[in-house]
Amino acid sequence: MTTAKKARTTPPYELIYWPQIPGRGEFIRLALEATGTSYTDIANESKDGINAVLALKDENATSSGDGNPPAFAPPALKVPGEGKEGKSLIIYQTPSILAYLGDKLGLAGADEAEKHWILSHTLTALDLNSETHDSHHPIASQLYYEDQKTEALRRSRDFREARLPKFFGFFERVLKSNEEGGGKFLVGGKLSYADTTLWHVLDGLKFAFPKELEAREKDYPTLFGSFYDSVKEISGLKEYLASERRLPYSQGVFRHYPELDRQ
Amino acid sequence: MTTAKKARTTPPYELIYWPQIPGRGEFIRLALEATGTSYTDIANESKDGINAVLALKDENATSSGDGNPPAFAPPALKVPGEGKEGKSLIIYQTPSILAYLGDKLGLAGADEAEKHWILSHTLTALDLNSETHDSHHPIASQLYYEDQKTEALRRSRDFREARLPKFFGFFERVLKSNEEGGGKFLVGGKLSYADTTLWHVLDGLKFAFPKELEAREKDYPTLFGSFYDSVKEISGLKEYLASERRLPYSQGVFRHYPELDRQ
Repeated sequence: MTTAKKARTTPPYELIYWPQIPGRGEFIRLALEATGTSYTDIANESKDGINAVLALKDENATSSGDGNPPAFAPPALKVPGEGKEGKSLIIYQTPSILAYLGDKLGLAGADEAEKHWILSHTLTALDLNSETHDSHHPIASQLYYEDQKTEALRRSRDFREARLPKFFGFFERVLKSNEEGGGKFLVGGKLSYADTTLWHVLDGLKFAFPKELEAREKDYPTLFGSFYDSVKEISGLKEYLASERRLPYSQGVFRHYPELDRQ
Repeated sequence: MTTAKKARTTPPYELIYWPQIPGRGEFIRLALEATGTSYTDIANESKDGINAVLALKDENATSSGDGNPPAFAPPALKVPGEGKEGKSLIIYQTPSILAYLGDKLGLAGADEAEKHWILSHTLTALDLNSETHDSHHPIASQLYYEDQKTEALRRSRDFREARLPKFFGFFERVLKSNEEGGGKFLVGGKLSYADTTLWHVLDGLKFAFPKELEAREKDYPTLFGSFYDSVKEISGLKEYLASERRLPYSQGVFRHYPELDRQ
């Protein structure tokens, strides 16, 4: 399916997420970009788009009157016409949005088994994403880094020395076990949303912990050689990553604090 | 569908999880018990069942030769006959197992929208479960509580004062928004795995932070009155909760350290 054809045949997907950072919204963007699917990134594309994010997380909101439940936090995906009584459907939680889009965009595997493995590996990659966040915010999301720096130094050391090898070793084994994927795909013989999700976490870790990653990459040649390098060359993703739509890392999940990296 | 009928018509589901603690395995047990589905809880039911858990998390394992990928951590669900070429299917990650079982056991809603909202709310309840774990283990899972007690005192205070009201307030709003559920179900008019999952997290929090919960429950009358009380009376769950199969809380996610509770 070509990019132009997809753009005409999919509903006008709308991503509701904070502007100016990749954040968890990036996992949704990558699934859409890898399939050449058109979408609106409302807070990045319009001046008052931030209002959609603020409305989503309004802690006084019960029902929006369109049949959708409240959402705990961004990102959310809005799909016009696919909700109750032909209204808009709104789904929140990154893995749930990816499971929905995966089915629609052909990123969810060839059968029921693959579909669930793709969700499982995605959840594991997102656990690594969450642990990366907690490496610089181990006490409270609402506090500044500077107010939990002592604890962050301790947690990030465990994260680098115990958690990273555990996750990297696991995904290396998944890639090696999947003969059909040839080191390029986690499940089966084609791209899934587990691949795009894991890829972004690896890319973010390279930014946040450059010394640690440089020292460890050689131990996982399938993950950092074959997999990481091939996903970023995939048609759709390659163009996206070179575009202005790909936002730089800054003060989100992936932050480069040299003192937290390997010394 | 009666319990006896289910027991004959479902495959011999096997839960692979650590013995003697509720842990994340409990979310799977509750979905099975609430639907009267027969299953084997291998590490609790047989003396050498622990070997299945150890094999699952073997960090040298690549493929088990049955077409399933490696699993990052327990719990896992084994479903004989449902994998590649008629072999056993093995799924890991709690939300992925619940999504699979939800479809099979009628706990995943009435349509595609409800199916995704149920997954979303489940993920949010499991985020609360993970944050509960981190309230006593904010630095490293592999260290003893005593070796991170200073940090735990600080994190648990934020957890009680900022995070609990945020999660409780959210689920109170979800319940109020879902008119069809009458305060008893998060999505639609019948039980889903989001309900059983959230119920267990609330129950665990009552054990771990009794003073905090006692002080807060009155602010969320739908959540702690209607919802919590009605789920535990549901046929199947009620009998399970009174049985010896329901394991007591001990040194798992939900731990009662009086010093971390409201003073």
